[in-house]
Amino acid sequence: MVGGGEGSFIGPIHYRAAMLDGFYQFVCGAFSSSYEKSLQSTDFYHVGKSRIYPTWEEMFRAEAELPVTERMEAVIIATPNHLHFPQAMMALDRGFHVICDKPATISLAQGLELEKKVQETGLVYALTHTYTGYPMVKEAAEIVKSGILGRIRRVIVEYPQGWLSSSLESTGNKQAAWRTNPEMSGPGGCLGDIGTHAANLAEYVTGLQISEMCADLTSFVPGRKLDDDMVVLCKMKGGAKGLFFASQVLTAEENELKIRVYGEKGGVEWCHAQPNSLLLKMDNQPAATLKAGANHNYLSEKTRWNCRTPGGHPEGYIEAFANIYKNAAYHMLSLKDGRFKMPDFIEYPTIQDGVSGMKFIERVLASAATDNKWIVY
Amino acid sequence: MVGGGEGSFIGPIHYRAAMLDGFYQFVCGAFSSSYEKSLQSTDFYHVGKSRIYPTWEEMFRAEAELPVTERMEAVIIATPNHLHFPQAMMALDRGFHVICDKPATISLAQGLELEKKVQETGLVYALTHTYTGYPMVKEAAEIVKSGILGRIRRVIVEYPQGWLSSSLESTGNKQAAWRTNPEMSGPGGCLGDIGTHAANLAEYVTGLQISEMCADLTSFVPGRKLDDDMVVLCKMKGGAKGLFFASQVLTAEENELKIRVYGEKGGVEWCHAQPNSLLLKMDNQPAATLKAGANHNYLSEKTRWNCRTPGGHPEGYIEAFANIYKNAAYHMLSLKDGRFKMPDFIEYPTIQDGVSGMKFIERVLASAATDNKWIVY
Amino acid sequence: MVGGGEGSFIGPIHYRAAMLDGFYQFVCGAFSSSYEKSLQSTDFYHVGKSRIYPTWEEMFRAEAELPVTERMEAVIIATPNHLHFPQAMMALDRGFHVICDKPATISLAQGLELEKKVQETGLVYALTHTYTGYPMVKEAAEIVKSGILGRIRRVIVEYPQGWLSSSLESTGNKQAAWRTNPEMSGPGGCLGDIGTHAANLAEYVTGLQISEMCADLTSFVPGRKLDDDMVVLCKMKGGAKGLFFASQVLTAEENELKIRVYGEKGGVEWCHAQPNSLLLKMDNQPAATLKAGANHNYLSEKTRWNCRTPGGHPEGYIEAFANIYKNAAYHMLSLKDGRFKMPDFIEYPTIQDGVSGMKFIERVLASAATDNKWIVY
Amino acid sequence: MVGGGEGSFIGPIHYRAAMLDGFYQFVCGAFSSSYEKSLQSTDFYHVGKSRIYPTWEEMFRAEAELPVTERMEAVIIATPNHLHFPQAMMALDRGFHVICDKPATISLAQGLELEKKVQETGLVYALTHTYTGYPMVKEAAEIVKSGILGRIRRVIVEYPQGWLSSSLESTGNKQAAWRTNPEMSGPGGCLGDIGTHAANLAEYVTGLQISEMCADLTSFVPGRKLDDDMVVLCKMKGGAKGLFFASQVLTAEENELKIRVYGEKGGVEWCHAQPNSLLLKMDNQPAATLKAGANHNYLSEKTRWNCRTPGGHPEGYIEAFANIYKNAAYHMLSLKDGRFKMPDFIEYPTIQDGVSGMKFIERVLASAATDNKWIVY
Repeated sequence: MVGGGEGSFIGPIHYRAAMLDGFYQFVCGAFSSSYEKSLQSTDFYHVGKSRIYPTWEEMFRAEAELPVTERMEAVIIATPNHLHFPQAMMALDRGFHVICDKPATISLAQGLELEKKVQETGLVYALTHTYTGYPMVKEAAEIVKSGILGRIRRVIVEYPQGWLSSSLESTGNKQAAWRTNPEMSGPGGCLGDIGTHAANLAEYVTGLQISEMCADLTSFVPGRKLDDDMVVLCKMKGGAKGLFFASQVLTAEENELKIRVYGEKGGVEWCHAQPNSLLLKMDNQPAATLKAGANHNYLSEKTRWNCRTPGGHPEGYIEAFANIYKNAAYHMLSLKDGRFKMPDFIEYPTIQDGVSGMKFIERVLASAATDNKWIVY
Repeated sequence: MVGGGEGSFIGPIHYRAAMLDGFYQFVCGAFSSSYEKSLQSTDFYHVGKSRIYPTWEEMFRAEAELPVTERMEAVIIATPNHLHFPQAMMALDRGFHVICDKPATISLAQGLELEKKVQETGLVYALTHTYTGYPMVKEAAEIVKSGILGRIRRVIVEYPQGWLSSSLESTGNKQAAWRTNPEMSGPGGCLGDIGTHAANLAEYVTGLQISEMCADLTSFVPGRKLDDDMVVLCKMKGGAKGLFFASQVLTAEENELKIRVYGEKGGVEWCHAQPNSLLLKMDNQPAATLKAGANHNYLSEKTRWNCRTPGGHPEGYIEAFANIYKNAAYHMLSLKDGRFKMPDFIEYPTIQDGVSGMKFIERVLASAATDNKWIVY
Repeated sequence: MVGGGEGSFIGPIHYRAAMLDGFYQFVCGAFSSSYEKSLQSTDFYHVGKSRIYPTWEEMFRAEAELPVTERMEAVIIATPNHLHFPQAMMALDRGFHVICDKPATISLAQGLELEKKVQETGLVYALTHTYTGYPMVKEAAEIVKSGILGRIRRVIVEYPQGWLSSSLESTGNKQAAWRTNPEMSGPGGCLGDIGTHAANLAEYVTGLQISEMCADLTSFVPGRKLDDDMVVLCKMKGGAKGLFFASQVLTAEENELKIRVYGEKGGVEWCHAQPNSLLLKMDNQPAATLKAGANHNYLSEKTRWNCRTPGGHPEGYIEAFANIYKNAAYHMLSLKDGRFKMPDFIEYPTIQDGVSGMKFIERVLASAATDNKWIVY
Repeated sequence: MVGGGEGSFIGPIHYRAAMLDGFYQFVCGAFSSSYEKSLQSTDFYHVGKSRIYPTWEEMFRAEAELPVTERMEAVIIATPNHLHFPQAMMALDRGFHVICDKPATISLAQGLELEKKVQETGLVYALTHTYTGYPMVKEAAEIVKSGILGRIRRVIVEYPQGWLSSSLESTGNKQAAWRTNPEMSGPGGCLGDIGTHAANLAEYVTGLQISEMCADLTSFVPGRKLDDDMVVLCKMKGGAKGLFFASQVLTAEENELKIRVYGEKGGVEWCHAQPNSLLLKMDNQPAATLKAGANHNYLSEKTRWNCRTPGGHPEGYIEAFANIYKNAAYHMLSLKDGRFKMPDFIEYPTIQDGVSGMKFIERVLASAATDNKWIVY
């Protein structure tokens, strides 16, 4: 693992997600840019000090030289955004599978280069777009795909947060500091941090592609260098329209990501605040509340595969994260052992999601910068 | 009353709202453009046949000639949109107070003319923008006004409906027919029918005025002459931004109007599906659920005035509607009897709301028709 | 109307419920035991002073002597509990229909006597057990009756209130004073005030009768003369079991009456806090949320009859109350005009509900007073 | 680990809970009474075949003879109920800490014997009463302890399930079979399986002890040997009263355990369906919704300690389970390393909870078998 040291929010999440289903073991790390600090995380990650490296470059180099049975097989990238690209590139070059925090890169050009690299190496590249790991998000996608909603007309995704409603970055908060710094975070603020989650969720659930876009970015907090609020209208191929709204200044909101998709005959609604439920609303019928549960036969096979417990046992954020780890592990397994064929219902976010995210950021920035209402996507 | 005959949705609502608190009595009517059909409504409205008139013009004329103690004092206008203006003008000219369905008129020019007329006559003109009649909407406005949320940054109003998701107008449905016909409904479809509710609610709760606007209108249903879906982004004076979204093609949605307002220190959230609650979210505190109730001392005086029952007794749509009737009645009373002074907490939507609505429609249409992202409001 | 004067909670509710659908007009009253106070209510009820009577006895006598076309047709009884019986008896004797607040009487013996009187006179006697007036409660009963839930096993009704969690009766609160005074309220406190609502709701929805009972009554507040908390277990004919729980000392609760009924194949759940919804849970299926709405074809005819608006327009407590008034009015009409036959879907709570309530109170008191676990009902 | 083999629901939960925070490693197992079947679980639990034992007795014996640095330190007991006692006794005797599924034993006598053994050995004995591992359940207990609710009056716990609403045990379902078999499950059916959860939760949150009890047990499903439905009324020391209700025949319900506690000044409410929220209702104030989150300063230190993520990241059943593992691990650590002192906010369910549970089962059975309403507890 690279990154994830002391004070990291996402590092321990990766650890837990990786350990939850028993497919992974942590064997080495460069948890921090400081070797000293890195060593402080050995206990948490259960990694022996001998395999803590002063830099990630050195880690990749040294591990690649270990015998196959000893060296790490996959690297987890949990560093600030600007490092994702070089780290993923080098890891793939050295033959390691990659599990990377989003965003994949900080530019579309990088994204495309990385995509090429993934294709060339044939290795696994998993991007932890957590929300598509929730079973009921997968169910939503399966429902759309089944066609029962009819042709899709409207996609509405909102992602309200409030933790940046004051200038937290000027109080020494590390999480706030790098996210509002274009050099570490890339050119999108709220856009890059959570706006891309909204777009990714919309694409995942509907399978639709954006054709034109009208974006508005705002920095509400004085002195902030990046946007902290994003609204995007878009036209999708096939005639649907999208409305994506994300903000980090909606004081007191936490993480209530929500998606609603409406077709000619019905709609679905999923909200992160109640992640184990999915509302299905068909015309002239009572709304149905579908619930997660490995034993619920009314759910798709894919959805049940991504539940660990029978209905009535709430699963949450770590479990969704772990679904990405689990499904990527099966992919790694299928590459290792040709006899294991990945069934269709095993999937996880890949570099394509990363490239889409980069394109989304670039086009939103382009739209926000122009006076024309619509730009081609 | 004019309009509201057989098959009308809103007519019986006006009746119930008017009767609920005992301030009104129905004395005459021209319930339909057909005298025959008009007569069929006498039982429902408890109006004697002798005071059913073949046309509204005749009604206004004849009633104005009756002795003061016998003639009607106020007229309720519940006809299709294009008649609201001429009827209100004539009613005011003849000395009658007016309670009118929204929209007030079908153009801004008419709106301004009517505003002038109301001012000249000094009569009561109440516009039944129902949603601002809900006690907890009033509480939301009072909370914003109190300043505890800090400076307002974001206003989000959504109004999802689905009843026009197919071409209902081509099946003989009367409600759908006039609403999708520009000659009866005016130039806004969804925009005029419910988009204006969204805008009115935003203005009412925040007290903020729009300065710039970017609108997108869509007709999703083939063959429909008016928009059935509206998204509006706007900049407000003082730096806030608004997002107003209304649609009538969100299959299976009914009437879940929802407003969220966020300031620097906290936010409020109200949803029509649970009209007796209001969420107050202050930074770093648990969210508080305020509940309607005449006995709830934590509510403002205005809010309590608009509750008929103690907490725990759900009030709904008719009661909200009736609050407009009740408050307008007190205004009529104060005009009649100089000794009764209207306290501050008695208010209802007036012609100013009507003019604002007309301006909103005109500017949204203008914005939707241009390729420029922002237009001045 | 008798009772309902200044300070009454329920008087104005009766007024509004009666006026809502236009079937009633208030013509006379004895609103208070004090003639002076009675006169103060003439404005509210729109009754001329000439027909305000010093006592209810005088009112019944005088009105009965008026010509048929002038005299009142039905009397509303909204006095403290101990007066319900003598007033209803005299009203029926004089030929007036009766609409009475619950409880019907303060003893079972009285209840049975009154039942006999109602049968003898053939007049309408409606008891305002409000909660069975809610459309979605009626839908619950229709669903049980349809058999789709299979044989019923469990009925759970809870009625949590908190307004009596301190000794409100010793602070001069009139509502609290008479309700905690056995002479005005009868021998049941919480039991009589809201416990009977719970039992009535259970009987209404399931159609089942109690066969054995085990009750526990508590007075939590020191000095209180009557119970303020009730738990009742019961066995029902046919093998189902009931759990009825009501309390007035659950601090900060308001009125969240809730019923759940489970059969072999599924269950239904209704809660007063969201009265326009009904949950239907069938085995191995997603829960369905049925919503009130005159236009919802998936609801029973009876349910739709008791809705005034299409789906998405919240109706509440007053509307439920008004359904009793409306349905009783149709019954009065059918008695007046033999040609009008009451369809099956028109019903309202009658003296049978009143007798059941009295029996419930007597048996709960008997059970609470014995050391035997079960008593025969 | 003993038990938890192929087909077990709870085995994999133990695994995930143990792994989540990195305090445990699985080193040996006797996952099934069949050695063959046991071997099939080695992959899942990541245990080498060399340390799979044919019987648990052999495992305890063999492991105890391994060098301290190699042998297992704690044993997880996830077998059917009747084995919990002998396994825990032997494990403690051999010097292993114990983490045991509830119930601790199948009789009170066993429970007391085991309690003595735990005290004698000074080893850690953790009982996985999962629900008290939820952070917001801990917050509820902290709030009660703080005194802000005043003296407690009413405790209401309900645990509705529906999975046994038909005779699942006669269809070959293993989970249903042992739970309805008194020889494997002990004398309580629903009572032992989930009734004890209800009682444990009540005791944990309120700290109150039962003094008298009135219980009713039912077997609704024909042919079932144990109860499938339980209602318990109880008097608590200090004057409060409890109502505990659990059932496994409420068709279509899953696991909606809910507790409500009311004192003189306010109440708290927690429901397993929304485990990251806690409602706090104080008299004359809006209800507050407290949310789990390691960063929520309004929560107690204990609550925050048991959250892994900041607010807005749902945690669920596995995380609650893991809190027991985590806190027990800290206790084991403090025993190993005298310098580490357990802070007050680290706690987990112990053998005392196990003994209480056994007593609860015995007294409920005694009460259910007598015709007297109340029995001394």
